[in-house]
Amino acid sequence: MAVLGIDIGGTKTMVAVADDCGEIVSQARIHTPREQGPDAVLSEIEFAGKLLLQEAELGREEVKAIGIGCGGPLDRRRGIILTAPNLPGWDDLPLAEYFEKSFGAPAYLDNDVNLAALGEARRGAGKGVDHLAYFNIGTGIGGGIIIGGKLYRGCGNAGEFGHQIIEPKGPTCLCGKRGCLESLASGTSIARRAKEYLAVHWDSLIVRMAGTVDKVTAESVAQAAREGDELAQRIWRETGEYLGLGVANVVNILNPRRVILGGGVIEAGDLILDPVRQTVRERAMTQLAEDVQIVPGALSDQAGIIGAICLAIERG
Amino acid sequence: MAVLGIDIGGTKTMVAVADDCGEIVSQARIHTPREQGPDAVLSEIEFAGKLLLQEAELGREEVKAIGIGCGGPLDRRRGIILTAPNLPGWDDLPLAEYFEKSFGAPAYLDNDVNLAALGEARRGAGKGVDHLAYFNIGTGIGGGIIIGGKLYRGCGNAGEFGHQIIEPKGPTCLCGKRGCLESLASGTSIARRAKEYLAVHWDSLIVRMAGTVDKVTAESVAQAAREGDELAQRIWRETGEYLGLGVANVVNILNPRRVILGGGVIEAGDLILDPVRQTVRERAMTQLAEDVQIVPGALSDQAGIIGAICLAIERG
Repeated sequence: MAVLGIDIGGTKTMVAVADDCGEIVSQARIHTPREQGPDAVLSEIEFAGKLLLQEAELGREEVKAIGIGCGGPLDRRRGIILTAPNLPGWDDLPLAEYFEKSFGAPAYLDNDVNLAALGEARRGAGKGVDHLAYFNIGTGIGGGIIIGGKLYRGCGNAGEFGHQIIEPKGPTCLCGKRGCLESLASGTSIARRAKEYLAVHWDSLIVRMAGTVDKVTAESVAQAAREGDELAQRIWRETGEYLGLGVANVVNILNPRRVILGGGVIEAGDLILDPVRQTVRERAMTQLAEDVQIVPGALSDQAGIIGAICLAIERG
Repeated sequence: MAVLGIDIGGTKTMVAVADDCGEIVSQARIHTPREQGPDAVLSEIEFAGKLLLQEAELGREEVKAIGIGCGGPLDRRRGIILTAPNLPGWDDLPLAEYFEKSFGAPAYLDNDVNLAALGEARRGAGKGVDHLAYFNIGTGIGGGIIIGGKLYRGCGNAGEFGHQIIEPKGPTCLCGKRGCLESLASGTSIARRAKEYLAVHWDSLIVRMAGTVDKVTAESVAQAAREGDELAQRIWRETGEYLGLGVANVVNILNPRRVILGGGVIEAGDLILDPVRQTVRERAMTQLAEDVQIVPGALSDQAGIIGAICLAIERG
């Protein structure tokens, strides 16, 4: 028997086949052809899944369950994407049903960040921890909550860590509100703040790393910081302080044993982890700050697909 | 059979005897003689408990369990108060053991705000709701979380809603950190901000309500606001906006079905509820703001003692 995992992102999608212990036996990473609309994306994923089954020498009838992660808002029970901000045209899309038909097995849909949290909890940096909070810091900031070893969803959408308000008069966020953590500490906001600073500090290494100011990303700011550029280091310190405020609030509210930080921005390593940890120590309640370990994710960009496989196994 | 509930506060303490359905059959409210130290307080509570049992014509052997609420930090499992900020000298005090000896029944200790949350969940404004967050806004701001119908405690101290950071550069809080919700929206902070404003707006009705500036409290600001005083109304609006940011963050993180606002400050009614609800609508994620009902507590200052009785019944 086998399960299928699918992790759909705005730019790349992962598909994997795993055995019934959840060990991945074959996996593909495909470019998401989102500009061609949902039909093209779905048939590409289906094609990849069938190829992977062939590779693993498994018949379709051996697929026991399918776990699917995708950006929300979504209707988990009905397996439908309501709207996907980074996948134009994906409105009211019956994603689970599509793959149930393709592979003849029950399919379970969940928010991609929830599944990354589940993946880290089961097989990554959260193994053996009962209560944990997972932050995914990439283009945006998402969150997932594990309570008593299980995903906690509240009324369905708990864990919007990126949209807690950190600076009431702060910059406008993509969500339309002001001063959200996402508007201050996401990859997008790092690049935005860098560009603002570069208008004055035009001699920063950041520009050299990026080529031109237009091309500045969180990654070029990280490169410049590692080369000793002061402005770049300051931007990371500020980012870590903002993120630290968001982590401190989650620590004060949930009192988790562990906070796991995942997503592309965390690849900056200590540049961001150090100020996050320091800010939590300084600004969360003392006892609660002592209770918590703040660690980077262990699964890198595999967290979501591994979580999708865990979902398929646990629900299937 | 009967249970005993005890709710210990810095100024008043409630003691109640309830039948095994949790209905209170006799109750006393006593002044907490905290200046006389823990021994005096404990023996006064013991005396009140025995009197109440007599009144209810119950023997001590009929007490099945005792539920005790007190301010933390405390060690719930061992039934010990570690330190009680508003009860000087209460360090490492074995509270549960004392009452176990007095009444010959098992005693269970928990944080007073957690028990108020439990009381509202079981018999007040949270009846029938699976996921809820309870704010207690009085001298300080505390919180309690109910998940799946049960108190959620994290590593032991979850729900520190009052110490989430709302204004990173805001005023210093009693906890020593800056810009905590408690430093912006508690009863203490309402009085503090009123006094600051009164240095300029000396003609406000607030002073007349209080007698002198020194005596200004949240209550006198509420009285002046109800009489139409503009400054007082502005203070309540600001307070509600700050509290609304704190509620919005809890909504974004926990996605609860209901948020219950209790404690003395909420007696200001719509003066504070209206701006809280408006701020949550404006600043929480749209879907999550739609999921949640924001309601005042239904049990007033009985929430804690009723929660203590629920604890005794559920654990006993």
